[in-house]
Amino acid sequence: MASLGKGRIEAFSDGVIAIIITIMVLELKVPHETHFADLLPVLPVLLSYVLSFVYVGIYWNNHHHLFHATRGVNGAIMWANLHLLFWLSLIPFVTHWMGENFRASAPVASYGFVLLMAAIAYQFLASLLARHDGTNSVIAKALGKDRKGNLSVLLYCAGIALSFVNFGAALSVYVGVAVLWFIPDRRVERALAEVQAVQPNGNGL
Amino acid sequence: MASLGKGRIEAFSDGVIAIIITIMVLELKVPHETHFADLLPVLPVLLSYVLSFVYVGIYWNNHHHLFHATRGVNGAIMWANLHLLFWLSLIPFVTHWMGENFRASAPVASYGFVLLMAAIAYQFLASLLARHDGTNSVIAKALGKDRKGNLSVLLYCAGIALSFVNFGAALSVYVGVAVLWFIPDRRVERALAEVQAVQPNGNGL
Amino acid sequence: MASLGKGRIEAFSDGVIAIIITIMVLELKVPHETHFADLLPVLPVLLSYVLSFVYVGIYWNNHHHLFHATRGVNGAIMWANLHLLFWLSLIPFVTHWMGENFRASAPVASYGFVLLMAAIAYQFLASLLARHDGTNSVIAKALGKDRKGNLSVLLYCAGIALSFVNFGAALSVYVGVAVLWFIPDRRVERALAEVQAVQPNGNGL
Amino acid sequence: MASLGKGRIEAFSDGVIAIIITIMVLELKVPHETHFADLLPVLPVLLSYVLSFVYVGIYWNNHHHLFHATRGVNGAIMWANLHLLFWLSLIPFVTHWMGENFRASAPVASYGFVLLMAAIAYQFLASLLARHDGTNSVIAKALGKDRKGNLSVLLYCAGIALSFVNFGAALSVYVGVAVLWFIPDRRVERALAEVQAVQPNGNGL
Repeated sequence: MASLGKGRIEAFSDGVIAIIITIMVLELKVPHETHFADLLPVLPVLLSYVLSFVYVGIYWNNHHHLFHATRGVNGAIMWANLHLLFWLSLIPFVTHWMGENFRASAPVASYGFVLLMAAIAYQFLASLLARHDGTNSVIAKALGKDRKGNLSVLLYCAGIALSFVNFGAALSVYVGVAVLWFIPDRRVERALAEVQAVQPNGNGL
Repeated sequence: MASLGKGRIEAFSDGVIAIIITIMVLELKVPHETHFADLLPVLPVLLSYVLSFVYVGIYWNNHHHLFHATRGVNGAIMWANLHLLFWLSLIPFVTHWMGENFRASAPVASYGFVLLMAAIAYQFLASLLARHDGTNSVIAKALGKDRKGNLSVLLYCAGIALSFVNFGAALSVYVGVAVLWFIPDRRVERALAEVQAVQPNGNGL
Repeated sequence: MASLGKGRIEAFSDGVIAIIITIMVLELKVPHETHFADLLPVLPVLLSYVLSFVYVGIYWNNHHHLFHATRGVNGAIMWANLHLLFWLSLIPFVTHWMGENFRASAPVASYGFVLLMAAIAYQFLASLLARHDGTNSVIAKALGKDRKGNLSVLLYCAGIALSFVNFGAALSVYVGVAVLWFIPDRRVERALAEVQAVQPNGNGL
Repeated sequence: MASLGKGRIEAFSDGVIAIIITIMVLELKVPHETHFADLLPVLPVLLSYVLSFVYVGIYWNNHHHLFHATRGVNGAIMWANLHLLFWLSLIPFVTHWMGENFRASAPVASYGFVLLMAAIAYQFLASLLARHDGTNSVIAKALGKDRKGNLSVLLYCAGIALSFVNFGAALSVYVGVAVLWFIPDRRVERALAEVQAVQPNGNGL
């Protein structure tokens, strides 16, 4: 097996995702005044920070599950992973723009666009991992027909379209997709549990 | 056991906490002048940085002990952990606001509020870990009735209330809770030592 | 063998590279206006971010492969590694300067200069690792005559020279070198695979 | 042995040190103009960045060696480690102040003061580690009478005093101490090598 270990790609991804999720808090500008009312202008930025925190948390969670079920990585997987990290790294930028202008089409649509590209990058990474492990592998079986992933892509497109009509509806769609993914990917957990039942010393961490 | 390994959740938390603790130093604005007296306006920000550094250090310390005694994690634990990290990530924001306005009620109360929410998030995470490991587990026994945690929650509430009366008293309460937690959680260490005495090849790192 | 383990030098390098690759996104200034056209001034900075993201990704990839094939490190290797990280840490600075002034000679030449110094630092690190492992080691054989590395150094020099004549040509050279390195170093992967075929319990991760 | 594993304290320290060493580059303000001459005002900040990069690199190197020779940690060691990280976290602040005002006493003296406190914190951490491992341990023997550490403390004091007389002399002292420490701590490496020669399956990583 010429494939490389997965430990370092996990550690690097954890580092990048940890920085992305924490860097967003730098966008929260401390008010110059000292009353609670002075926090009001910060509120929309804080709320979009919360939404993005949940999204980046979801990606970390799913990334964790995805690589937990994986046996090894190759060069293509490394680049697919960096591609995913690239789109995730743009989340602080669009979060800030949307947080300061959540009633405007362009920022809300841009936020959805970055989420859309990250979702596509994740699906691509997952498919490469499934191919690398073989069609009979845990991950290939677990992913199967990725209905939740496909649905998310459709919903992001709907959200982007809605942002030109009604920003509230667009934001609701983004929140809805986050709720959809809030629960980590049971398919992978279930398939792993099955495999471990058959082969007790499977590829557990 | 379908539970996931705890290694990556520890690594991710370490990353986020390391960034939070270091990012606060970016709030220390370098004076434009070049005399020691020009450092005076920086002093309150530096002192609130010290307090927050100790607090984040305490959380890292206790987080380390908590997961050291844990056998595995599940999806709910991951989200409870992210919830704790979310409140910790707001510490740089309230530290900066309080550092620049430590005589005003709202910033001092906000600082206490974020500490309160982080404490509640930590208690919730610990209770999930205890439930996951089973009521006879090391961690469940060690936590038992979490008197120090409950006392902290009460003291934060008192600190928030005091911030509307006397900012010095409120700050003293925050410093007091930090002193209370300065010593890492002996309960976990003691329970671990007992278990390791009985089962020599226990769940040591 | 008095050499130190390589685990911590990998972890530290991963941390620094993860921060470098993510910190660049802070340079993307959120527009004050809310139309798509307001993103246009951000576009050159975004494009130079993409190029630097790919470059830092290439360095991480190659760093991963380099240390994967290595058995241990010593003090000199640690400093050669820090020297590489130093030049990589200047990439966000020159990326930002070039992104805002990609039609000017000095920023485009400075960008090439930092890439050149990083390439030389990488070659020096690789040669130290090969010497440490011995001339018959996997890494020494794999690197052999480092033609791709030498070609890159020449191309960076050409790019720097071109930046005083035609910035488009200089940028094309920088993009060209990135494409050249996009595929991870097959030599190391191939040599590792050969060794693992002979010694099945080789130095896999 | 009730002591905790050292893996996570190393990972956390690596994270904090990686952020400190990289965050300093954010102080390098990109010039608004586009000539090489516009880099001149950045030069002193860049040079103080180089000096601090070397210093933080030295601390990481020595920290690596120190914990490599260590068997376990306890609560006091964790706090001594956080205390060291606190002083290291102030290096970006004093680096920036000195970089912009390297001809003024207060910034140059402040830089030396933070280095002095970091050196004292390191000595304290090393003594706790030696006590924890026992007087016959590798680390206790290796450290012995810490002459280089004591000399550094004296030199930092001299540098601080000199900064009120001649900033060039003070800077030379700081550079001199860095050169003194540039070579990693041979004492620990030598003692480790001796122990590993006696006990072949010693505490290698």
